Amino acid sequence: MIELQTEHFAGVEALHAFPAGKRAEPLPSVVFYHGFTSSKLVYSYFAVALAQAGFRVIMPDAPDHGARFSGDVERRLRQFWQILQGNIEEFSALRDALESQSLIENQRLAVGGASMGGMTALGIMTAHPEVRCVASLMGSGYFSSLAHTLFPPLEVTNTEQQREFETILAPLAQWEVSHQLVRIADRPLLLWHGEQDDVVPAAESFRLQQALQDAGLDAHLTYQWETGVTHRITPLALEATTDFFRRHL
Amino acid sequence: MIELQTEHFAGVEALHAFPAGKRAEPLPSVVFYHGFTSSKLVYSYFAVALAQAGFRVIMPDAPDHGARFSGDVERRLRQFWQILQGNIEEFSALRDALESQSLIENQRLAVGGASMGGMTALGIMTAHPEVRCVASLMGSGYFSSLAHTLFPPLEVTNTEQQREFETILAPLAQWEVSHQLVRIADRPLLLWHGEQDDVVPAAESFRLQQALQDAGLDAHLTYQWETGVTHRITPLALEATTDFFRRHL
Repeated sequence: MIELQTEHFAGVEALHAFPAGKRAEPLPSVVFYHGFTSSKLVYSYFAVALAQAGFRVIMPDAPDHGARFSGDVERRLRQFWQILQGNIEEFSALRDALESQSLIENQRLAVGGASMGGMTALGIMTAHPEVRCVASLMGSGYFSSLAHTLFPPLEVTNTEQQREFETILAPLAQWEVSHQLVRIADRPLLLWHGEQDDVVPAAESFRLQQALQDAGLDAHLTYQWETGVTHRITPLALEATTDFFRRHL
Repeated sequence: MIELQTEHFAGVEALHAFPAGKRAEPLPSVVFYHGFTSSKLVYSYFAVALAQAGFRVIMPDAPDHGARFSGDVERRLRQFWQILQGNIEEFSALRDALESQSLIENQRLAVGGASMGGMTALGIMTAHPEVRCVASLMGSGYFSSLAHTLFPPLEVTNTEQQREFETILAPLAQWEVSHQLVRIADRPLLLWHGEQDDVVPAAESFRLQQALQDAGLDAHLTYQWETGVTHRITPLALEATTDFFRRHL
């Protein structure tokens, strides 16, 4: 049996799941990030599956999502990259909150996520060597190139807009995987992608797998592509995630 | 806080969620059905959301899914309609198991589901007047016509195959909505569909809403269509489901 409740960590509302009776006990812990325009509640099956496997799971609301949603759907659609940045920046405070409550057993802390959450997880991996292992499902670590096709923050038709676009994307460069493969190669990483993904192209994950392999940096990489699957999480994807954290956290 | 565990009811593995400490207490209860080729675990966010709203939630494995999966992916893809039939037929035993354990408060029993689960819920509604209210998300109640385009049980190129096709579909006719609108109009019903659904066409839900309205049978109908949404559950869909059961169960 597991227990699940809504709590705040570092001022952010989160779902918190754990094996029954172990709210206060140090446990191997996974911070898991939901997708864009979705919610921690809609992604809470990851919390259920991972808590059933013995982990503590913390699923925070992304900025402007869930309890933090302003209600302005149109505005949020233009804020994808700022929200991704917010997610990554907020990780340190969330980790500190978990540590200050002694919730993490022996620094066994992992990060995972799907879609924008997968991108968040990869970004965090580049900047936080204390994270033991990472799962990115239907995500991407190539922010600068992807921003031109996936929820671009604005339409660019003149140099002024071009500058604005670059200003929005600039902070994300520090978490790009392209120029720091070594930082995501030194710990276990899971990549999962549906091959017919119609939102975040599977090519984003193929590219990262290929780059790691070409550089001889794939010793800690696990990847799984599922044929005929669009932008959705299958039972196999969920199982791969649970298996991965069981093996590596 | 909620609790969630894996249990068996009437011999079928199910997820069972409830407000913390209320495993054995009679509660308003929702039986919720998952989608085809997916699993009760992947759909368990419905159990989380509804248990957080105070309900008991039972999510059984469909035949050949989850713990009941044979492992033969190809075979299962041709069994959609037989599996739907199995789901509907198994409801009585599941209901009896819940009743024999006195888990349902004052006969407050509802059914819901998404995709194949939504079709299951509509089928059960036609046959079980004891079910107080029903939620069908991205489902359909028009089985005979839909079977020609959605996971047809076999390819029909001759009269022998035509006969076989009809034999498979025949048992489902008793639960079709088309000839028994009155049976789904006398209790609260929620229909939700993403308008750009690329698996179960939204027209299936529009058709039912229109038929109920044309017959003057829509007094207990709630419906919600979401623009720009494909075959997936959004935060609004989940909220509509929770609100619906809060109001009507």
